[in-house]
Amino acid sequence: VHNTKKHSKEIHHFNPNNAKSALEILNEFEKTKVFGGGSLGKAFKILVQAKEEGAKVFFSFAGALIPGGMKEVINEGIKSGLFDCIVTTGANCTHDLIEAFGKPHLTEIDYKNDQELRDLGIDRVYDSFVSAEGFPTLEDNMKILIDEWWEEKNLDGVLHSTSHEFMGWIGDKIGDKHSFIKTARDHNVPIYVPVIADSVLGLQIWLRSQFKKIIIDEMRDLSSIQDLFHNSPKTCAFMAGGGVPKNYMLQSSLMSDKEYQYGVQITMDRVETGGLSGATLEEAVSWGKFTWEAPKSTVYADVTIILPLIVTAWKEYKLNKSI
Amino acid sequence: VHNTKKHSKEIHHFNPNNAKSALEILNEFEKTKVFGGGSLGKAFKILVQAKEEGAKVFFSFAGALIPGGMKEVINEGIKSGLFDCIVTTGANCTHDLIEAFGKPHLTEIDYKNDQELRDLGIDRVYDSFVSAEGFPTLEDNMKILIDEWWEEKNLDGVLHSTSHEFMGWIGDKIGDKHSFIKTARDHNVPIYVPVIADSVLGLQIWLRSQFKKIIIDEMRDLSSIQDLFHNSPKTCAFMAGGGVPKNYMLQSSLMSDKEYQYGVQITMDRVETGGLSGATLEEAVSWGKFTWEAPKSTVYADVTIILPLIVTAWKEYKLNKSI
Amino acid sequence: VHNTKKHSKEIHHFNPNNAKSALEILNEFEKTKVFGGGSLGKAFKILVQAKEEGAKVFFSFAGALIPGGMKEVINEGIKSGLFDCIVTTGANCTHDLIEAFGKPHLTEIDYKNDQELRDLGIDRVYDSFVSAEGFPTLEDNMKILIDEWWEEKNLDGVLHSTSHEFMGWIGDKIGDKHSFIKTARDHNVPIYVPVIADSVLGLQIWLRSQFKKIIIDEMRDLSSIQDLFHNSPKTCAFMAGGGVPKNYMLQSSLMSDKEYQYGVQITMDRVETGGLSGATLEEAVSWGKFTWEAPKSTVYADVTIILPLIVTAWKEYKLNKSI
Amino acid sequence: VHNTKKHSKEIHHFNPNNAKSALEILNEFEKTKVFGGGSLGKAFKILVQAKEEGAKVFFSFAGALIPGGMKEVINEGIKSGLFDCIVTTGANCTHDLIEAFGKPHLTEIDYKNDQELRDLGIDRVYDSFVSAEGFPTLEDNMKILIDEWWEEKNLDGVLHSTSHEFMGWIGDKIGDKHSFIKTARDHNVPIYVPVIADSVLGLQIWLRSQFKKIIIDEMRDLSSIQDLFHNSPKTCAFMAGGGVPKNYMLQSSLMSDKEYQYGVQITMDRVETGGLSGATLEEAVSWGKFTWEAPKSTVYADVTIILPLIVTAWKEYKLNKSI
Repeated sequence: VHNTKKHSKEIHHFNPNNAKSALEILNEFEKTKVFGGGSLGKAFKILVQAKEEGAKVFFSFAGALIPGGMKEVINEGIKSGLFDCIVTTGANCTHDLIEAFGKPHLTEIDYKNDQELRDLGIDRVYDSFVSAEGFPTLEDNMKILIDEWWEEKNLDGVLHSTSHEFMGWIGDKIGDKHSFIKTARDHNVPIYVPVIADSVLGLQIWLRSQFKKIIIDEMRDLSSIQDLFHNSPKTCAFMAGGGVPKNYMLQSSLMSDKEYQYGVQITMDRVETGGLSGATLEEAVSWGKFTWEAPKSTVYADVTIILPLIVTAWKEYKLNKSI
Repeated sequence: VHNTKKHSKEIHHFNPNNAKSALEILNEFEKTKVFGGGSLGKAFKILVQAKEEGAKVFFSFAGALIPGGMKEVINEGIKSGLFDCIVTTGANCTHDLIEAFGKPHLTEIDYKNDQELRDLGIDRVYDSFVSAEGFPTLEDNMKILIDEWWEEKNLDGVLHSTSHEFMGWIGDKIGDKHSFIKTARDHNVPIYVPVIADSVLGLQIWLRSQFKKIIIDEMRDLSSIQDLFHNSPKTCAFMAGGGVPKNYMLQSSLMSDKEYQYGVQITMDRVETGGLSGATLEEAVSWGKFTWEAPKSTVYADVTIILPLIVTAWKEYKLNKSI
Repeated sequence: VHNTKKHSKEIHHFNPNNAKSALEILNEFEKTKVFGGGSLGKAFKILVQAKEEGAKVFFSFAGALIPGGMKEVINEGIKSGLFDCIVTTGANCTHDLIEAFGKPHLTEIDYKNDQELRDLGIDRVYDSFVSAEGFPTLEDNMKILIDEWWEEKNLDGVLHSTSHEFMGWIGDKIGDKHSFIKTARDHNVPIYVPVIADSVLGLQIWLRSQFKKIIIDEMRDLSSIQDLFHNSPKTCAFMAGGGVPKNYMLQSSLMSDKEYQYGVQITMDRVETGGLSGATLEEAVSWGKFTWEAPKSTVYADVTIILPLIVTAWKEYKLNKSI
Repeated sequence: VHNTKKHSKEIHHFNPNNAKSALEILNEFEKTKVFGGGSLGKAFKILVQAKEEGAKVFFSFAGALIPGGMKEVINEGIKSGLFDCIVTTGANCTHDLIEAFGKPHLTEIDYKNDQELRDLGIDRVYDSFVSAEGFPTLEDNMKILIDEWWEEKNLDGVLHSTSHEFMGWIGDKIGDKHSFIKTARDHNVPIYVPVIADSVLGLQIWLRSQFKKIIIDEMRDLSSIQDLFHNSPKTCAFMAGGGVPKNYMLQSSLMSDKEYQYGVQITMDRVETGGLSGATLEEAVSWGKFTWEAPKSTVYADVTIILPLIVTAWKEYKLNKSI
C-alpha cells in the first residue's frame, strides 16, 4: 500500500488564536503552506532567512506606491535594515518629492469626471490625487535644486551623472525626514532609477538640460549596481511589482558569475501572457538570475496589502531579537 | 484660487509602528483610504459597523477554502459571532467532511505529474492534496450517514429535504469539533449549499438515491434563505469569492422589499468581463440587492490572505470590547 | 555539442498575410505555438480533432454571455454541430428568455449612478442593461408557462422535474428562433442548469411553487448527464468560464470508468488562488476527469472575444468540408 | 412611462455568418458594443478613424512580443502604415536581433526544470526559448557592430547618442528583412527604447563602454519624441501592454500644449492596484495626456491574441480602400 503520508505533510489551518501580532500572523501563514496564504508566509520566512544568513536585500518597487500610502512602510524597511538597495521608478521619486515639498497626496475628492480634475489642475492616480499645487511646487523646487546640482557637480560645463548619484544628492538636500529618498540616503541605501527620463522628475531635468548640459548616464548606473551585486557575498531579490525595476534588478546578476540566492516577489501579473513582469522566479533560473536551490516565493496579491504586513512583521522580528 | 484641500483629505501612509496586532493593522489600512490597502481597511470597518448596528452577516464563500487552510478561520468567524448565515459550495462541505472523518489534506507532495497522482489515487487542489484514503473514507462514512438520514427523515419512503437541513443534520452527527459544518450547527448558523449535486458529496447522495428515494428540494432552500433575510431587520452581505454562492446569497433580497444594507466582497475576478463574480457592489444596487447608501467595499485580493486578517482582527475587537 | 534544435521547433511568427478568414486566423495562431495566441490556435485544433474523431462536445458556459452579445454565437455552435450538450447558469437562461419575450438587452445608456437605474427599473450587467420592461415581461410570461407546464406534467398534483427537462419543454414552447434554448431544443442538444434556483427564472418557479407543488430534482439531472457521458464513446469538455457549470460538467465523468479525452477551456481566472474555476486541465487528470493523453488547451482570455472566433472558424471549417 | 429605449441602443449579438474575414470580424465585434468583444471592436474603429483623420499613431509595446511570435504582425503594422512611431523595451530589440543574426526562438522543448535549461544554456520566456547559440551569437555580432558604430559616430573619442539613433543605425546595418528594427528603419518609423540599459542589448553596449566612451543620452531621446509629438497635428496613442513604454509614450504630451486625440490600449493589468500599467485612459485625461473628447477603448486581453486581429483587419481595410 502506498503511504502518501510518508512523502507529505498535513496542512495546517490558519488559527486566528495564534495570530496576536504581525509576526505571528506571518508565522501562521507560513504554517499553512498552501495557496496564497502559504506563499505569503513562505515569502516572509525567506526574507528573514536571507537577512539572518547575511544576504543583502535588493528591493525593487514599481507601481504608484507613494500615492498609494506606502511611504512609511518603505521608510521602515530601510530604517530596520531590511532593504540594502532600492530600484524604483521615476514616478515614485516624483511623488515622494512632491510630498517632501509640502504637498501631500489627497483622497476622497468628489469629482464628476477626469475633465473636471483636469480643469482644476488635479492629477489622479486611481483614488489618490496630486493637488493643483503639487506639480507647480515640484517644478519650482526642482528648478532651484537642479541648478544647484549642476553648479556643484558640472565639469567644464557638463554635468555627467547617474540616477543613483542624483538620488543621493537630492536625499542630502531635502529636509523632510518622511521622504524615502532622504531616509535611504541617511541609511546609505542607494536608489537606482533605471529610466529617470520616464517621469515628471525626468522632465524637470530635461527642462534644465535645455539651458545647461546635463547627462544622465545609463551605463555608469549599470556599472554601479553590478559592482554592488558583485561585492555582496550573498544576495536576495525582493520585488514589489514587475516592469523595468524587476528586470533591471535581476539583470544585475547577468554579468556576474553569481546568482541571487533568495527570491521573493509580490505581483498581480499573470504568468501566461509571457511577459517578464509575471514571469516565475523559476524561469529566472534558466537565465542565471537565481540559483536553482534558492528559496523562492511569489505572492499573487496587491502590494499595498502585502508589503505593510511583511515590513511590520520584520520590524517586530528585529525588535524581539534585540531584547 | 481653488482650494482642493477643502474637498478632500490628506492620505495617511501606513505606519508599521502603529500596527501591533491584527486589529491595529486593519485600522491602519483603514486610515490610508487609498488603493488595495485602503479597501481592505474599509471592508473591515464596514463589518464592524454592521455588527455594531445589529445587522445579520450573510457570508458566502466559493473556491477551495478548506483545502486552502481556512477551516479554523471560518470556525472562528462562526464562534465569534461574525457570521450569521453561510452559503457555500458542495466541494467545501466535501473537503470539510473528509477531514472530519480523519483524513487531513496534505501538502509538499513531490510528484512527477498528475497522471502519477491519478495512479496513486491522490487528488490535487493546486498545492493541496486529498490522500488516497480521503474519498474512500468519505464514501464509507456517507453511505452509512445518508442511509441513517433517510431512515430518520423519510416520509412514506421518500426523503424530501433541503441542503440546509442536511447540513444541519450532518453537523449534529459528526464528532469532529474542527468541522465547520459542526461548528456552524453548534452555533445555529445555517449553511446553504445552492447546488449540493455539484460535488462529490452530492454524488454520494445521488448514489444512495438509486436505492432510496431522496429529493433535495431547491425551492424549499430558497424559501428558507428568503425568510431568513426577510426576518433580519438589518443585513450585511460578506462575500469571499463569487460564483453561485455570491449570486444566490444576493438574490435572497430580490423577493423582499428590503436590500442588503452593508456589503463587503473579496475577489480576484475582473469587472470588465461582465460576469457576476467580478461585478461591483454598485452594479448590484441597480438590481435592488443593496441600498445605494449601504457602505460597500471590494477587496481585490486572495481570500486565503484577506479572510484570516479580517477574522483575526474581528476576534480581537470583540475581546477588547468584552473587557 | 548539445543540439537544442533536435528537441524543438522554431517558432512561427503570426503572418497577417496568411489570415484571410477566421479559419485561417486560427490556423495561423496554431502555427505560432507559443503564448496566448498559440494556446488559442491549439484550442481550436483540439476541438476540430475531437469532432473529426467522433467525440461529443460537452459545452459549459458561465458569465453573462447572453447580455454580452454571444447568443448567436451559441446558436451557430449548436446549429453547426459543435455543441452536443450544454451546461450553463440560470441567469443565462433568464436573459435568453427575456429576449425571446421581445425585450432585447440595451446598451449606451447614459446614467448618473446605479441608484438612478434602480429608480428607472433598469438592471445593469456591466455595460449591458435589462430594460424596465424586461423582468415584468419575463414574470408575466413565465407565470403562464410554468402553470401550463405544471398542468401538463404534474402527477397527482406534484410536478417532479429536472432542469434539462424544463429547458427542453420551454424550448418547445417559445417561438423566437433566436433563443438559444429553442435552438438547442430544435437540435436535440440538452441544456443542464445545475442550480436553476440561483436565478430570476428560478425565483419564478419558486413563486409558482408557493401555489402548486413543483420539485426540481437535482439527482435526476445528475443521472441524466452521467448517462449522456457514459453513452458517448468519446467526449470533449469545452468550458467557457468556470464556476458551477465547469465543475458540474467535469464531474459527470467521476462515476464513470472513462474520462474526457479532449479538453479546452477559456478563462480569466487564476491558477494560484486554488479555486476550481482557474484550475488547470492537468490538475483535473489527478481527479480522473481527463486522460493524461487528452490534448488540452487553456486560453486565458475574455470569452466574448474568443468564443466568436472559435465558432466562426468552426463554421467555415464545416462549410469547406462539405464543398 | 419611462421609455428607456429613447436613451439607448439594442445590443447586437455577434453573428458568425457576417464574419468572413478579419475586417468583418472586427466590424461585427464593434456592432455588439458590450463587454470585451465590444471594446475590441471599438478599439479597431478608433484606430481606423485616427488614420482616416490624419493622426500619427504612436505605438508602444511591452512584454515579450518577439519571443511570443508577434514579429511579422509588427512588421505588417509598420509596412501598412498603421504605426508612425514605436516605443518599446530593450528586451524586444534584443530578441529581434537574435533572430536577425540567424537564431530563431524555439518551442516545444521538453525539459525537466529550469536548472536543466540553465545547464544547456537555454533561456526560457514562458513557452518560448532562446537556444544556446542565441546570446553568444548576439554578443559576437554586437561587439563588431557597436565598435563600428563608435568608429562612425564618435566625436573626439566620445560616442554621444540616443536609443532612437542607435535603433536607426542598427536598422540600416542588419540585412534580415524580417527584423522589425530594420522594417521600421526602412519605413522611417523611429523606435524609442526609453531604457536600453535594461536589456541584454544594453549590457552589450555597457561592455563596449568599458573600452570606449559611449553615452546613451536619455534627455536627447526625450527631446526627439516630444518634437515628434509636437509636430504631429493629430496623434493617437496605441498601447500594447503597460510599463515604461506606455508611460514614456504618454508623457511625450506633457510638455506640449496638446493632448493625444485618440487612445487604444490592450492590457491584462488591473485598474484597482493603482499602477500606471492598468490605469484607464480616462485617468490620463486628468494628466492632460488625452483630450476628454478623444475616443478611447481599453481591451482587457492578451496582446498576442488581439494585436494580430487588429493588424490583419487593418491590412484588409487598407487593401479594400486601394481597390
